[in-house]
Amino acid sequence: AVDAQRLLGRIRELGAVGRDGEGRLTRLAASDTDGRGRDLFVGWLRQAGLDVAIDRIGNIFGIWQNAGNAGEAPLLIGSHIDTVIDAGIYDGCYGVLAGLEVIETLKASGLSPSRPLAVAAFTNEEGVRFSPDMMGSLVHAGGVDVEAALAAVGTDGSTLGQELARIGYAGEREPGFLKPHLYLELHIEQGPVLEREGIPIGAVETLQGISWQRITLDGVANHAGTTPMSMRCDAGYAAARVVTFLHDLAAASNAPTVATVGTMRFEPNAINVIPSRAVFTVDLRDPDEQRLQAQEAALAAFLERLAAEGITVSVERLARFEPVVFDGRVVELIEAAARKRGLASRRMTSGAGHDAQMIARIAPAAMIFVPSAGGISHSPREHTEDAELVAGANILLDVVAELAEL
Amino acid sequence: AVDAQRLLGRIRELGAVGRDGEGRLTRLAASDTDGRGRDLFVGWLRQAGLDVAIDRIGNIFGIWQNAGNAGEAPLLIGSHIDTVIDAGIYDGCYGVLAGLEVIETLKASGLSPSRPLAVAAFTNEEGVRFSPDMMGSLVHAGGVDVEAALAAVGTDGSTLGQELARIGYAGEREPGFLKPHLYLELHIEQGPVLEREGIPIGAVETLQGISWQRITLDGVANHAGTTPMSMRCDAGYAAARVVTFLHDLAAASNAPTVATVGTMRFEPNAINVIPSRAVFTVDLRDPDEQRLQAQEAALAAFLERLAAEGITVSVERLARFEPVVFDGRVVELIEAAARKRGLASRRMTSGAGHDAQMIARIAPAAMIFVPSAGGISHSPREHTEDAELVAGANILLDVVAELAEL
Ligand SMILES: NC(=O)NCCC(=O)O
Ligand SMILES: NC(=O)NCCC(=O)O
Repeated sequence: AVDAQRLLGRIRELGAVGRDGEGRLTRLAASDTDGRGRDLFVGWLRQAGLDVAIDRIGNIFGIWQNAGNAGEAPLLIGSHIDTVIDAGIYDGCYGVLAGLEVIETLKASGLSPSRPLAVAAFTNEEGVRFSPDMMGSLVHAGGVDVEAALAAVGTDGSTLGQELARIGYAGEREPGFLKPHLYLELHIEQGPVLEREGIPIGAVETLQGISWQRITLDGVANHAGTTPMSMRCDAGYAAARVVTFLHDLAAASNAPTVATVGTMRFEPNAINVIPSRAVFTVDLRDPDEQRLQAQEAALAAFLERLAAEGITVSVERLARFEPVVFDGRVVELIEAAARKRGLASRRMTSGAGHDAQMIARIAPAAMIFVPSAGGISHSPREHTEDAELVAGANILLDVVAELAEL
Repeated sequence: AVDAQRLLGRIRELGAVGRDGEGRLTRLAASDTDGRGRDLFVGWLRQAGLDVAIDRIGNIFGIWQNAGNAGEAPLLIGSHIDTVIDAGIYDGCYGVLAGLEVIETLKASGLSPSRPLAVAAFTNEEGVRFSPDMMGSLVHAGGVDVEAALAAVGTDGSTLGQELARIGYAGEREPGFLKPHLYLELHIEQGPVLEREGIPIGAVETLQGISWQRITLDGVANHAGTTPMSMRCDAGYAAARVVTFLHDLAAASNAPTVATVGTMRFEPNAINVIPSRAVFTVDLRDPDEQRLQAQEAALAAFLERLAAEGITVSVERLARFEPVVFDGRVVELIEAAARKRGLASRRMTSGAGHDAQMIARIAPAAMIFVPSAGGISHSPREHTEDAELVAGANILLDVVAELAEL
């Protein structure tokens, strides 16, 4: 079994990096606090005696190999340590630190795995500062060119490549240098299913599609007091109509479609000026690709209606990932490991995007979920019980041991 | 007649203070650029040989008096030189600089008025940075205590009193020290009426009521991908519903009610996080007090519905002014002056708030309007033809001459 205290202690220690005086944790990709979190993680990798490798997109790898297995493709365990704004401490970090914990535990056992074991912390999984999300793993999987990714411009106008260099994590290895034999990711569910059903282990077999867009609506600024309602071209009102349209579209469908407008900005943003511009993001998801396309088309048609009313519409694509089906054999291994430990498990779909979604392009992959209290994530209220965290890590340990023929 | 070139030249010179490289003019109350605009204006007052007085709320007065009339209550002409964000150059400045122009013209004529003539630039008329709007004239009229006004906190967290001191315009005179015999204000219409009807002069007899509120809606942050639509408490969606409700309420009424949501902020403002908070302002106006109250009540009822759905609602009152009726005799003087110059005029109501609305509490007051191209204001596209500006200033000159028994 893993060392529960070491694992939980590290989760808390990393969770304190980037937390302000009011207890709000924000560790955006390639920020100063991300740099401090990375330093802490790399220190633990070295303490554990792993080889540390950093690639050009800033992905960090800790590798345990020996003379006997160095020629084999490694088993890779990964996730991320960047966070959203006002985040919880488990999203991502749990999987990375459990990966390290599993490798350290197996290393200490004196056994010798048939292939190298590696743990990865991928850059910018959250996609809050730089789009798209899952960027480091996407680059690793060859889904986007590293130069294009490094040129990504952040919400604060910064450039990812410059920011990585600034915090000392523009590495030298070529992305994708490590070709995994198989990929595993342990993560909190971030949704309500496991808790509601009282099941400790999720064996994730599918991941829904993700569509991110940034929409800019331009109207005409004018005086809030003197301009009759009939003579307005109000970009803020138009944006509000998009928000309610999207919400009602998703809520009214009998499908699991979700639609979110998480960011919003008005210009000039003055109390007595009709907004000339509104800029906002749309996050649309569906486990079914056909349905996701239909929802995107409905949004586009609504935007065309606004354009016909005189609003200038411009749409920027920030991310688009189709639904993913994980490797059935890996999913079965997870179910079998849970059974052996006497833990109930269920197959499920992931509502969130994960690095596993990208690495599944180049290697068999699957994910293990543990419950999220109240289904809450991307919030300081995110919580999972210690015993549930430890149980998940032990399932990961068992699956890795099985795969590494220990 | 006034010196047209001097007036137009000053409007352009003041309009360049606070304009950025892209031609966007922003001169928010008590900002550095407001300070530079004030310096320019005070320089012109001194050049014209007027006595300069500055009160504790930063209102600037230029006074022309002599031994013969110093005991009389002055005729006051006023407006403001602060602007909104991305403003036009005429709103406010036109009235202040025309007031100076009229006094300078009369002074140069060698005649001696029966009472002092004064021009005022009131602090923070726009209300964009600090609430309420028309603050300097409200304090002058005794409508709010000067200490309370100086303690106003700006959109950027600054305090008006500290900002006035910083830019060197925390004066020593007690607000209200100058008791006007009568008040006149010349302003661009900022609405479409005069242009549409081809009438050069508006004799403003009423001013609509203004209701400003800041509304904060609190929901629950959660993951945009994992949280089913039915389990959301989305503050951004709730805010969008308020925006569309208010717009539709005003647009559907057969009344001239106008409703604007000019500012909007989401928290945490991240693409994949359901907003935990939305903060926005509501600007509601109506020439009829009963109807304005009914619209406020409808908004309050809608907010109660949101509260019943689990959104925490908090409402802050930023400004509330009842409709104002100007002095009928002053309105008649304006009409008569236009007639004498052979210019068509019409009585009208003002959609915008003005310093005249506040000073009307302590002295007979009225306003003169000139046309706004396309009815556009609070926008860089704000425009009035030179000839129209000069015509308005000459009407002001004639009314002042008449009242000062010249
Ligand atoms: N796991 C997770 O929260 N990923 C961030 C990308 C997303 O929004 O799904
Ligand atoms: N005249 C003018 O634009 N005043 C600003 C206050 C308002 O919003 O009406």
